[in-house]
Amino acid sequence: MTTTITQTHPFDDAVDLAPRPDGGVDGRTTAAYANMVGPFGGITAATLLRAVLDHPDRLGDPVSLTVNYAGPIADGPFVVSARPARTNRSTQHWTIELAQDGGVATTATAVFGVRRPTWSSTERVRPAAPAAEDVTATPFPDFIAWGKNYEMRFVEGGFPGPEAGESDDSTTTLWVRDTPSRPLDFPALAALCDVFYPRVFLRRGQFAPAGTVSLTVYFHAGAEDLTTQADEAVLATARAQRFGAGYFDQSAEIWGRDGVLLATSHQLVYFKA
Amino acid sequence: MTTTITQTHPFDDAVDLAPRPDGGVDGRTTAAYANMVGPFGGITAATLLRAVLDHPDRLGDPVSLTVNYAGPIADGPFVVSARPARTNRSTQHWTIELAQDGGVATTATAVFGVRRPTWSSTERVRPAAPAAEDVTATPFPDFIAWGKNYEMRFVEGGFPGPEAGESDDSTTTLWVRDTPSRPLDFPALAALCDVFYPRVFLRRGQFAPAGTVSLTVYFHAGAEDLTTQADEAVLATARAQRFGAGYFDQSAEIWGRDGVLLATSHQLVYFKA
Repeated sequence: MTTTITQTHPFDDAVDLAPRPDGGVDGRTTAAYANMVGPFGGITAATLLRAVLDHPDRLGDPVSLTVNYAGPIADGPFVVSARPARTNRSTQHWTIELAQDGGVATTATAVFGVRRPTWSSTERVRPAAPAAEDVTATPFPDFIAWGKNYEMRFVEGGFPGPEAGESDDSTTTLWVRDTPSRPLDFPALAALCDVFYPRVFLRRGQFAPAGTVSLTVYFHAGAEDLTTQADEAVLATARAQRFGAGYFDQSAEIWGRDGVLLATSHQLVYFKA
Repeated sequence: MTTTITQTHPFDDAVDLAPRPDGGVDGRTTAAYANMVGPFGGITAATLLRAVLDHPDRLGDPVSLTVNYAGPIADGPFVVSARPARTNRSTQHWTIELAQDGGVATTATAVFGVRRPTWSSTERVRPAAPAAEDVTATPFPDFIAWGKNYEMRFVEGGFPGPEAGESDDSTTTLWVRDTPSRPLDFPALAALCDVFYPRVFLRRGQFAPAGTVSLTVYFHAGAEDLTTQADEAVLATARAQRFGAGYFDQSAEIWGRDGVLLATSHQLVYFKA
């Protein structure tokens, strides 16, 4: 007798969706990706992208995704509805909502497209960093469950300790990959764009209430880039531009093997300080 | 006898909206803001923001706006529908669509909020530039109507002439303001975020088919910053990060008087080259 045990990766478990008769899909939060309040924003972004990827009318690959965290998501089930607002010859525009108990918790839009080879150039310069294996992996603070799903090797701007003072630079750069390791796909790439703790912690040298309000991901990677990347660590870097009146913005880059810029990402974050 | 002549600024004319019985608003394109195909993307962004600002249920000021250019907008009338997907104590999330003949041409989301004083810091450094009055104003190419509504003084990265070769830097920095001059407001600030010609022109030294697919604006300016700015020129700067497979991304900043970072903005652009 042979017994086959199939184990689902926690990430795939978290973004798993089941079709509903009304055209939407059913999902639910998982303990593995819990944040201090509700789920990790990156897993919500990945889940909404998954809903479009799974949709029977989907055309092409993700090009752009914007997720607005409108309200808290309670632990438990939710419904995602993804609607193709317009389909062109090679691009498709999606409007997406995540609802719980009939109330909207998250809104999003996505652009998908069929990508074709053109002139190409990466103008942005990858931050200098030692090889991933030469940087020590440090655990995320214990009370943040989702951090346990990522192996993080901070090159600069690690989580500020109790003795950290103020800093005049909000830059964090780290090698990061899923743990257990998992081949990179579009949802995982979207989630990685939100892997940075709030920049205000680094500048102020202490925790403060903070949460992403809006997250945008521009996917530069095509399917082939993801295959090349496989389950290797990416080099992720983020910095803020202006803090004030309760909000700051963050710009980030996700670099893959051989200096390929896989995604650029931006977010606006609410904070109190 | 006294005659008062009230002249509407072309910008206000372009973003003028009239309420509809169904809760939406009626708008129409204007010749003054025409682009090569359809209207200038910045005026569409401004119009969608105007629709939320005019909405009776609106809470606070714009914090974030994402506009997806889903399909061409034909010259003529259109309908904008703006729906508050969720209203919290101090933030509000909007889902917006622009339709023509029943088909969706533009989708958008916006976050509005009541802003309160907090710790603040501008980390991004303003590009070096001579004073606006020391830079020569240059006209935009004649065949682009909307360019006539802006006084542009290029500090670097001006429109490539017929003899321009390839460039390895996609940065454009310019002093820009509405002409005729007009006090800055949120819709005008949103439009200014899209004032840059496509970065691929600069890198390649020649025109190429290109169009914005998705535009995001993060509003750092509060109402008071706009009052201080009045009708003075802003310093606008933009650069691309990666070009490839038919798309490139652009990040931009809009700087006001006294080095205030009024907005940061990002967009994904379709191109052929």
